[in-house]
This record gives sequence, C-alpha cells and structure tokens, in this order.
Amino acid sequence: MPITVVGLDGDDTLWHNENRFNVTQGEFRDLLKRHVPDVDVDKHLFQTEMKNLGIYGYGIKSFTLSMIETAIQLTEGRIPASDLEDILGWGKRMLTQPTELLEGVEPALRGLGERYDLLLITKGDLFDQESKLARSGLAGLFLGVEILSEKNVSSYRGILSRRGIKADEFVMVGNSLRSDVLPVLELGARAVHVPYHVTWRHEHVPDESLPQSGWYRLDRIAELSPLLASL
Amino acid sequence: MPITVVGLDGDDTLWHNENRFNVTQGEFRDLLKRHVPDVDVDKHLFQTEMKNLGIYGYGIKSFTLSMIETAIQLTEGRIPASDLEDILGWGKRMLTQPTELLEGVEPALRGLGERYDLLLITKGDLFDQESKLARSGLAGLFLGVEILSEKNVSSYRGILSRRGIKADEFVMVGNSLRSDVLPVLELGARAVHVPYHVTWRHEHVPDESLPQSGWYRLDRIAELSPLLASL
Repeated sequence: MPITVVGLDGDDTLWHNENRFNVTQGEFRDLLKRHVPDVDVDKHLFQTEMKNLGIYGYGIKSFTLSMIETAIQLTEGRIPASDLEDILGWGKRMLTQPTELLEGVEPALRGLGERYDLLLITKGDLFDQESKLARSGLAGLFLGVEILSEKNVSSYRGILSRRGIKADEFVMVGNSLRSDVLPVLELGARAVHVPYHVTWRHEHVPDESLPQSGWYRLDRIAELSPLLASL
Repeated sequence: MPITVVGLDGDDTLWHNENRFNVTQGEFRDLLKRHVPDVDVDKHLFQTEMKNLGIYGYGIKSFTLSMIETAIQLTEGRIPASDLEDILGWGKRMLTQPTELLEGVEPALRGLGERYDLLLITKGDLFDQESKLARSGLAGLFLGVEILSEKNVSSYRGILSRRGIKADEFVMVGNSLRSDVLPVLELGARAVHVPYHVTWRHEHVPDESLPQSGWYRLDRIAELSPLLASL
C-alpha cells in the first residue's frame, strides 16, 4: 500500500531538544561539583528522574523538579537557596527558548505536505509541546497534532483508529527507536529512523532488538521524500 | 435540537481537586509564617503563579515550582533546603493521591452513558490528568478524552470539528464559568454549571458577564439527567 499519512516526531526530529537538556545538565553538574566534588552527579540525576517518571511524566518541569531534588539530596541540604533559584531559572530558560529547527526541516515538510497528510506526534508535557510548536512556525503544515504522555502500541493504535488511518498506509518518522519505531512496527505500520546526535539514555534501544524489515534509517529528513515515493 | 453528546469537566466536577490545592497551600502558608510572619503568603504565591502561567501552564508540577520560587523569594534565600524538600513532597503527594469522586458521580455517569456519548474534557497537565482518570475508575464510561492546555473557544471548536459534533447537539458540564460555560456558549452550544464549594481565584467570573440564556445551574451532577431530558 502506498503511504498516505506521515507521522512526525517533534523533539530531536524536527527541532533540537536533547542538546538543550545536555547543556543544562552540564551547568547542573558544574554547580554541584562545587559542593560535592567527588559525586557522580549525572548518575544520581538519572536515578532521580527514573524514580520520578511514574509521578511526574516527561518534560522540562519534571526535569527541573528532579534537579532540585537531586541537588538537595547530594548536598545533604547544604545547597544555598540562591543555587536552587538558578536551577529554577534554567528550567524557565529551556521553556521559553526559541524553537530551533534541524537543518532542512522546513523545506522538507513543505514538500511532504503536498503529497501526504502530516501529523505531528510527540510525547511529553502538553503545554511545553504546544508552546514549542507555536514557536516553531510549522503549525500550519500539520493536519493534526497529537501530544501523548507515552508513545506505545496502545497510544499509536488510538491515533490510527480515531483518525480512521489504516496501518499499512501510515509511516512514523522520528529519532527514537523506542518511541517512534518499535511500537509502530508492532501495529503493522512502517517507520523511518532519523537518528539525532545525542540520545537520552532512557530512549536507548539496541538495533538487534528491532525487526529485520518494515523500517528504514535516514541521515536527515531531507531524504524522506524520495524514500516515501519508493515505498 | 436534542442533546447527543455531553462533555464533562474533570477537576471539581467529577473529582475533588481545588480543596487539595487549598490543603497544600495551607501547609505552605504555615511553613512560611515560621520564617516571615508578617507576609501575605497567599498573595505572593498567587502573583508568582500568574507570572509563571504562560511559562509553566496549569497543574501540580507548576504549582510546586511556584511554591519553591515563592518560598525562596519571600525568605530572601533563608529557607532551609529541608523545607524545600517538604514542598517537593507535597507535590508528589498531590500527584499520587487516590482520585476522590464527588458524591453521586459514578451512578450519574452510568445513567447518562446509556443515553448520550460522554466526553471527558479537562485542562491541565496531560500526564497528571491521565493518571487521575486512570485512578478514578471512570475511564471506561467515556467515548473519548480530551486534555487541553487551555479551555477557550478555539480549543472547544477544535474538539467539535475533529469529532464531527454539531454545536446544537452538544452540552458542556463543569464547575468553572470561565472554562466550561463561557467559551461553549460562544460557540452556540449549551452548558451546565455545577459549582464546587471552592473556586480558584483565576477561574472566577461574575455571573453578570454571562449571557442570559443557553446555560443552566445545578447543585449536583445527579440532577443532570432530568435536565438534559427536558432540553
């Protein structure tokens, strides 16, 4: 079946995201090193984030709260409030930065939009994702926007069924094997992996755990149009 | 036109919400009074929340971050980290408490579900709202769930158009004149106001600013079925 609907992930597929978390996490590491030089800050922050994921969900507000919790715990409460204010400020900076598109995204989407229905399918914080989309200037190119708290087989199935899309005419495009490729293949739809140069540890999946067929890997989103035309 | 689709708000319409914020805000007030006895804590917290609304959006994580910011500012950084840990803990408690239904909600919804399509239409934090719905035991009663970052004319219009619902066969039921009644009336649909005993100041709207007709006020959701049958 030829493709009629293209689902596109947002974070690290259309616009930079993970590198912003990395920049902030670097500042956080430097800040804590001044108080507790011998501690593996990244390890503790990741543990706190994973412990809180089922309570907070994804997103920058969750990240900010987990940084504050980690800072208090690692310093045994000795962190000055002014440092915690800096952490609050980093979160707000992340939430209000301009959306920085990956190279070639806008022309690629304009071209795709002439031939396919485009859906933005992202996960994370509703308010933050809507705000990022608004700042991206891309909102008018999408037929629909789906913001999910988690991308899994059941949430993708919900989208296809609500919108009357058959699995074999749908392709999902994104940077995460775990969120954009694996669950989509399980539904019998196709997927295109466009890796980003950094992947959050939580999203990591080894290639070996993927099916042999039904998915493709591209270096950049500009290559998507010729690939889809060939399917 | 007879009603075919009933939209129901969640927070303070189906389950208790605002009183939980009030309980936590009371604890916050007591905590800060120990450091700054002469300060109007509620006023400053509300100002911080309103200043942050365009950055954080609604929800418990936003509330927690605003409490931490207010605590640091009002004490000029003298608040001990252990107090800030308590505030983080209050946020987590709010996010994980069992969903406590208002009286009569479950039988009322079961009855309505036999005659109308029911949609849950809430605003706030996506993850938190989904989690609350899951804990409520009511999820199976809804044909669909819409979680919005803001309830306004355009977001309601989007729901009706996506779902192919005509405005004159739709009624929205909720506790907030600002979010559940006013925008819905502007679309030419009908609305039922079921007040909750506390209203967040941000949601307050004087009765005089409402149209004369098209909306109804009930004391409890159990009265909804006979009202809808009479429309």
